[in-house]
Amino acid sequence: MKNGSPYGTHRVIEPQGVLPQGAWKIDNTMEICDNEILVDVAALNIDAASFTQIKKEAGGDPAQIEAIVRGIVEQRGKHHNPATGSGGMLIGRVAAIGPKLAGRIDLRAGDRIATLVSLSLTPLKIDSIKKIHLDKDQIEIEGQAILFETGLYAKLPDDIPEKVALAILDVAGAPAQTARLVRPGDTVVVVGGGGKSGTLCIYEAKKRAGPAGRVIGVSPFAKDCERMRELGWADHALQVDATDAVAMMEAAGAATGGRMADVVINCVNIPNTEMGSILSTRDLGKIYFFSMATSFTAAALGAEGVGKDVEMIVGNGYARDHALYALSLLRESPRLRRLFETLYV
Amino acid sequence: MKNGSPYGTHRVIEPQGVLPQGAWKIDNTMEICDNEILVDVAALNIDAASFTQIKKEAGGDPAQIEAIVRGIVEQRGKHHNPATGSGGMLIGRVAAIGPKLAGRIDLRAGDRIATLVSLSLTPLKIDSIKKIHLDKDQIEIEGQAILFETGLYAKLPDDIPEKVALAILDVAGAPAQTARLVRPGDTVVVVGGGGKSGTLCIYEAKKRAGPAGRVIGVSPFAKDCERMRELGWADHALQVDATDAVAMMEAAGAATGGRMADVVINCVNIPNTEMGSILSTRDLGKIYFFSMATSFTAAALGAEGVGKDVEMIVGNGYARDHALYALSLLRESPRLRRLFETLYV
Repeated sequence: MKNGSPYGTHRVIEPQGVLPQGAWKIDNTMEICDNEILVDVAALNIDAASFTQIKKEAGGDPAQIEAIVRGIVEQRGKHHNPATGSGGMLIGRVAAIGPKLAGRIDLRAGDRIATLVSLSLTPLKIDSIKKIHLDKDQIEIEGQAILFETGLYAKLPDDIPEKVALAILDVAGAPAQTARLVRPGDTVVVVGGGGKSGTLCIYEAKKRAGPAGRVIGVSPFAKDCERMRELGWADHALQVDATDAVAMMEAAGAATGGRMADVVINCVNIPNTEMGSILSTRDLGKIYFFSMATSFTAAALGAEGVGKDVEMIVGNGYARDHALYALSLLRESPRLRRLFETLYV
Repeated sequence: MKNGSPYGTHRVIEPQGVLPQGAWKIDNTMEICDNEILVDVAALNIDAASFTQIKKEAGGDPAQIEAIVRGIVEQRGKHHNPATGSGGMLIGRVAAIGPKLAGRIDLRAGDRIATLVSLSLTPLKIDSIKKIHLDKDQIEIEGQAILFETGLYAKLPDDIPEKVALAILDVAGAPAQTARLVRPGDTVVVVGGGGKSGTLCIYEAKKRAGPAGRVIGVSPFAKDCERMRELGWADHALQVDATDAVAMMEAAGAATGGRMADVVINCVNIPNTEMGSILSTRDLGKIYFFSMATSFTAAALGAEGVGKDVEMIVGNGYARDHALYALSLLRESPRLRRLFETLYV
């Protein structure tokens, strides 16, 4: 049995000298090294930006989606969408643990886990595609994957249905980062507040901002705004298109009496919402970009261009104990759990 | 005389409904609105990533560079490089001030100013190109430009030669942001520490980190490392290629006794240095990406992929009073001033 690097560099085929995420192609041979974990995969949860792009390219046709997904994995050895640069996560059962790890970690063969590292760096083989859930960004498959020594995972809990746990683990970074960002009394704007991660951010922001704070959800869709109002965690639901920077600024200004937001959390998965986010933030405020459609230069030059002294943070899907935190939210709020059970599974 | 929007949206030609920075093409007619400033341009300071790309495309030939620069401005009404998405800044003399602004701001016709907003949103007309400074990312021209009501500028000081002031104002955000980021005792890694903004970050980081702190400059070039050592502000100069993430991690680990950096400041202008920066940062540390070659998804997915709980910040070229701050550094340090007078003018 071969020795593997903790970061999986031994699997990189091309270009040489990079890590698996940066590689165009990685080795998806399903024989483990001494520090790898072999997983029998049950489902892929594709990153929303990636799945939207694939659906569009396929014209919504499931057979075409299957061909694109299989094509990506055959070409690259991983589900790393070349158009969006993003991946997703997977759920499965531990099939084998390398001897260097066995006994040193809290996993055994047979455990059900979700990977908390991106599919964009995870060696993957698809044997068959069983079902494509067009509206949930999920694909049920038969296949196998490899987890590296530094690869994060969550053991799936007994008290939460697997698919509900998977749905929240996919965006586990969102509430954990929101918890760090928002202070009592803050005015928080969540762009894309009607989506899955947006809903979690609104829930967590309201908890942290408290009674003196104000949480404002933004979506271009009436249905999303209605749901935000029904759930009751947002103080305002603004129906506005965040790609229209001027409209966004005016709506945020009206909702905050011209004060603008202390914190803007961007959870949309469409391009060109950087400037709308910047113009909705007060001077010296913070913007957290979870959206994988964020353009670095649009954000950097956008803020400079309008002379906004704001701190713009690249969303990190990982934060210490984020899986624990996300799952605990489902235990804490029956309403949130019901939402996940009905809408995201 | 027409009324203008404070953000310059009245100049947008296509697509409609966006701000000038996001527009493909803006109106560079040199007749001002009531809240605009007309500037007679003397020199363009092209963003380093953009100038590097243009030089490469032109094969280093000045005539070709001129053709590319003129082509961009003719097509877009601004010097907004479509390949890199970035711009630069300009220096010139105030030719006229719209009546809505005149008397309300500290400018008069005839004042020499530098614009502190990006060329990627500044209406520009080039009459002639006088000189291209290949090694300084500068182009002397005759032409005119428009500054919007929210557009930032700095009046050029009397005690500092114009070109020296321009050279430091171009990267004024770097020392101002470093001053906010670095705390006494911090270990700071400056990737690209041999360049212009990198040198300022090292200088400022050493000042802030103090005697208990440690500042480590990184460059792939022996010459840069030598200069860092001669200037004496960096405690270590590491000659390593930051695109080699594994080499970067090992070098930073060796220089910090495995502790890694509290703060990493990325000032390079080449792609694929995100992961090297991430792996050089300690858990819960911060990374400040000034490099316009930064990929948002590479940073976001990179940190998640290796399970690094770090805060990654999008470099904002603007911070309150950053021009004042940058110019004061030249008064504070004769060595820094000498460096700018000899190397960057």
